[in-house]
Amino acid sequence: MDLGIAGKWAIVGGSSRGLGRACAEALAREGVHVTINGRNAEDVSSTAAALREKFGVEVREVVADLATPAGRDALLAACPDPDILVNNSGGPPPSVFVANTPEMWQSALENNFLSAVDLMQRVIPGMRERGFGRIVNITSAMVTSPHPFMTLSIGARTALTGVAKAVSKEVVADNVTINNLLPERINTGRQQQMAELTAAGKGISLSEAYEEISASIAAKRLGNPSEVGDACAFLCAANSGFISGQNLHLDGGSYDGLI
Amino acid sequence: MDLGIAGKWAIVGGSSRGLGRACAEALAREGVHVTINGRNAEDVSSTAAALREKFGVEVREVVADLATPAGRDALLAACPDPDILVNNSGGPPPSVFVANTPEMWQSALENNFLSAVDLMQRVIPGMRERGFGRIVNITSAMVTSPHPFMTLSIGARTALTGVAKAVSKEVVADNVTINNLLPERINTGRQQQMAELTAAGKGISLSEAYEEISASIAAKRLGNPSEVGDACAFLCAANSGFISGQNLHLDGGSYDGLI
Amino acid sequence: MDLGIAGKWAIVGGSSRGLGRACAEALAREGVHVTINGRNAEDVSSTAAALREKFGVEVREVVADLATPAGRDALLAACPDPDILVNNSGGPPPSVFVANTPEMWQSALENNFLSAVDLMQRVIPGMRERGFGRIVNITSAMVTSPHPFMTLSIGARTALTGVAKAVSKEVVADNVTINNLLPERINTGRQQQMAELTAAGKGISLSEAYEEISASIAAKRLGNPSEVGDACAFLCAANSGFISGQNLHLDGGSYDGLI
Amino acid sequence: MDLGIAGKWAIVGGSSRGLGRACAEALAREGVHVTINGRNAEDVSSTAAALREKFGVEVREVVADLATPAGRDALLAACPDPDILVNNSGGPPPSVFVANTPEMWQSALENNFLSAVDLMQRVIPGMRERGFGRIVNITSAMVTSPHPFMTLSIGARTALTGVAKAVSKEVVADNVTINNLLPERINTGRQQQMAELTAAGKGISLSEAYEEISASIAAKRLGNPSEVGDACAFLCAANSGFISGQNLHLDGGSYDGLI
Repeated sequence: MDLGIAGKWAIVGGSSRGLGRACAEALAREGVHVTINGRNAEDVSSTAAALREKFGVEVREVVADLATPAGRDALLAACPDPDILVNNSGGPPPSVFVANTPEMWQSALENNFLSAVDLMQRVIPGMRERGFGRIVNITSAMVTSPHPFMTLSIGARTALTGVAKAVSKEVVADNVTINNLLPERINTGRQQQMAELTAAGKGISLSEAYEEISASIAAKRLGNPSEVGDACAFLCAANSGFISGQNLHLDGGSYDGLI
Repeated sequence: MDLGIAGKWAIVGGSSRGLGRACAEALAREGVHVTINGRNAEDVSSTAAALREKFGVEVREVVADLATPAGRDALLAACPDPDILVNNSGGPPPSVFVANTPEMWQSALENNFLSAVDLMQRVIPGMRERGFGRIVNITSAMVTSPHPFMTLSIGARTALTGVAKAVSKEVVADNVTINNLLPERINTGRQQQMAELTAAGKGISLSEAYEEISASIAAKRLGNPSEVGDACAFLCAANSGFISGQNLHLDGGSYDGLI
Repeated sequence: MDLGIAGKWAIVGGSSRGLGRACAEALAREGVHVTINGRNAEDVSSTAAALREKFGVEVREVVADLATPAGRDALLAACPDPDILVNNSGGPPPSVFVANTPEMWQSALENNFLSAVDLMQRVIPGMRERGFGRIVNITSAMVTSPHPFMTLSIGARTALTGVAKAVSKEVVADNVTINNLLPERINTGRQQQMAELTAAGKGISLSEAYEEISASIAAKRLGNPSEVGDACAFLCAANSGFISGQNLHLDGGSYDGLI
Repeated sequence: MDLGIAGKWAIVGGSSRGLGRACAEALAREGVHVTINGRNAEDVSSTAAALREKFGVEVREVVADLATPAGRDALLAACPDPDILVNNSGGPPPSVFVANTPEMWQSALENNFLSAVDLMQRVIPGMRERGFGRIVNITSAMVTSPHPFMTLSIGARTALTGVAKAVSKEVVADNVTINNLLPERINTGRQQQMAELTAAGKGISLSEAYEEISASIAAKRLGNPSEVGDACAFLCAANSGFISGQNLHLDGGSYDGLI
């Protein structure tokens, strides 16, 4: 399937590792030039090098924390007119709701809501003018299946979901789409850490720990980052302009609800 | 129907007027003592007097802006152990998404998300200990039908919806419920203002303006504040403890979606 | 709370026992005359007698299977112009999807979809003409949290949910509302049977079996039939005319989804 | 993007024209052998010939009405072990709810629910055994935005949505996914008829009629059949096995709801 986006420019947040990197790779594979971002210069640089070599696309590197205005300025300075924006940033750690401090709420909102909103505000006018835009927010299965220990993440990501839907209704007429991907248990470094912690804590082997995690997923396995990357690339395709305002679960069929 | 809550204590945010007052009245009618709040001392005082006279319950008055920590401190000082908490505050005005400033986002989050969250964090431990609690958040039909001009409201209220759902799953085992009411086009002072503006702007009569607004509702009429008040009181009933984590539209059947 | 429906007439399907009886009782308590239905003459008669004695309302008795056209004819002959219709019928047993026969599908559709639809088609015109109608469908938490073993029930009840929503949008303008109640683990005879089966099967006590069932509910208890009855009565209130097309879970806060 | 399904076998219902044909084409383009079905022998044959010539895949032809058991038998006789099943059949015409006859309900259920269910029941065991299966149901935007005039379609398609979700939870562990596509205003022959009717009825030009239809879509245009085909192909990809139980709107961003 030719996605029809070769030569476009993408910004992918938090793309030196994990889900963001998987999205950047899938886009680069389709011939999209990508702007790689992360907080660790070495990771950014090695990911950028790998993508250049493997896919022959242009890759720009921005070492920055996108939760800060300066970080976002740097990002947009490197790629002022992106055709594709993938908002992605790691979520806050679990917490006990009644013990959440104002600082914890603020940090979660800045990391997982306000930064994405600011980037959308700044890239959407250009996308509309040029008649092409694809925005994909990597949110979380927590949005549709909220868990009591994840209120910080849920508040921020659900806010983003609401705003994205509202804005999507207006901009789709200019061929700018906004969709969200809701991953759950994708086999990134984060799940590896969790498996290691589980193995150490329970005195079981690493593969037993993985099995335990897999049992919580309807598909009885973890997802591969490339499955998230491919879904992201599909939503960014030229021929995907009739799909907008959608929440696509990447959760091995685990979401319990009807719709 | 005896709601079984006579003698309980309620806090109702923004209850000197409009939807908040309607909720306070419905609770007072059922014998609930209420803590009335508003930013205008005269409104608070006249509402409190009216409720005392009409229903013979105790009424405490707190003139405060609940978007501020000091305002919330004053509220909880007046009623430290509420059995019922109704979170209610007027939403931000319409805006153009790409022109929203960081200050506008922050203000919306403080008014319509963080204040409600802080009050929930502070009253839930006592409710759980006492084995009874009813929390009702007045959100908006904008949560489930987001509109491009209302992103400020949507971000804040959708965040609250997510957090409320997450927390509800944990606290219901202690007979503490958290539900949301989603009103649309209730005939409060706000709709009267809108009708007057519409009438003046279009050179039509006030009743013609009301008809225009009514036409946007499936029921072809505006809702009465007492309809919101009764729904709130019902969710706070002793026998409503099996209902939690719900979003109840009070919109004249206008919500388009299946679920 | 005065529901404002004393003197109205209600039809409650499958109301000689269980959830249907609880709805009939709650309505009768509010002064509503009720038409009791069931397939067992003795149950119908004893329920009717109990309601007459306890609440002093008129009660009509219809022994009939509402899955048959003749049964529905008998029901409407007894109460041709109901103000309130509560559709309620027990669901099909669990099954293995790939082994479902055409007869099993047909039976499920007739019992839990087509019978309710036919009654709605026949009572709605009169309700609209008279400017008052309240329809409540007792569906199931399976509609929003479908389980692989309950496909027969899910197909029928989800169909009803869709049709009810569609029709609700049109009839609310005439003060006819249609809402669904989604119960889960209410302590009726059915749950008692399940508890007995569990106790016998596992060699545990009945109260241990009840504890096991309760653990599957977020509230850590079963619901009381009167909680369903009160919710039904509330939705039928005169002042509930702005609430329509809603799905209200009565599940101890167990539903996992955001909305 | 290589979908990784070249050489697989697909059954596509109602694929001699319209959306079904678009799905068959997109799959054939990826190297999938397809079984074409329709009720008109000439249409089936010409579509089959076109696909063979254009994509060089094997194409089998089944002239049959899939609403009948004999039609489904013929289909499965032609392709007993499909890797991919696309359920698709035209919906019933608009109707007035209270005037729906039992025959109309039965016909809708057979055409748009029971036929798809029967095919799923018969192909799923083999898919599970072989460890690969992709089922896509073409339903309708009416499922999530029910309209009063479309109750026949809504009843049947919502039932299918519920059953598909229930079953999806069980079979995904064997790499069998079930997802639904919800198209709205795709530019097939059906929309062309509607535009012609509108043009004739209102005395406007065909392009004015198209503009009127387009105005009802957030994207302000009709969708192209190839947009549905590509989405279908993506969901059938080898690397889409972590996506199941999803409802993907293909509606130009028109769906109003949050989730």
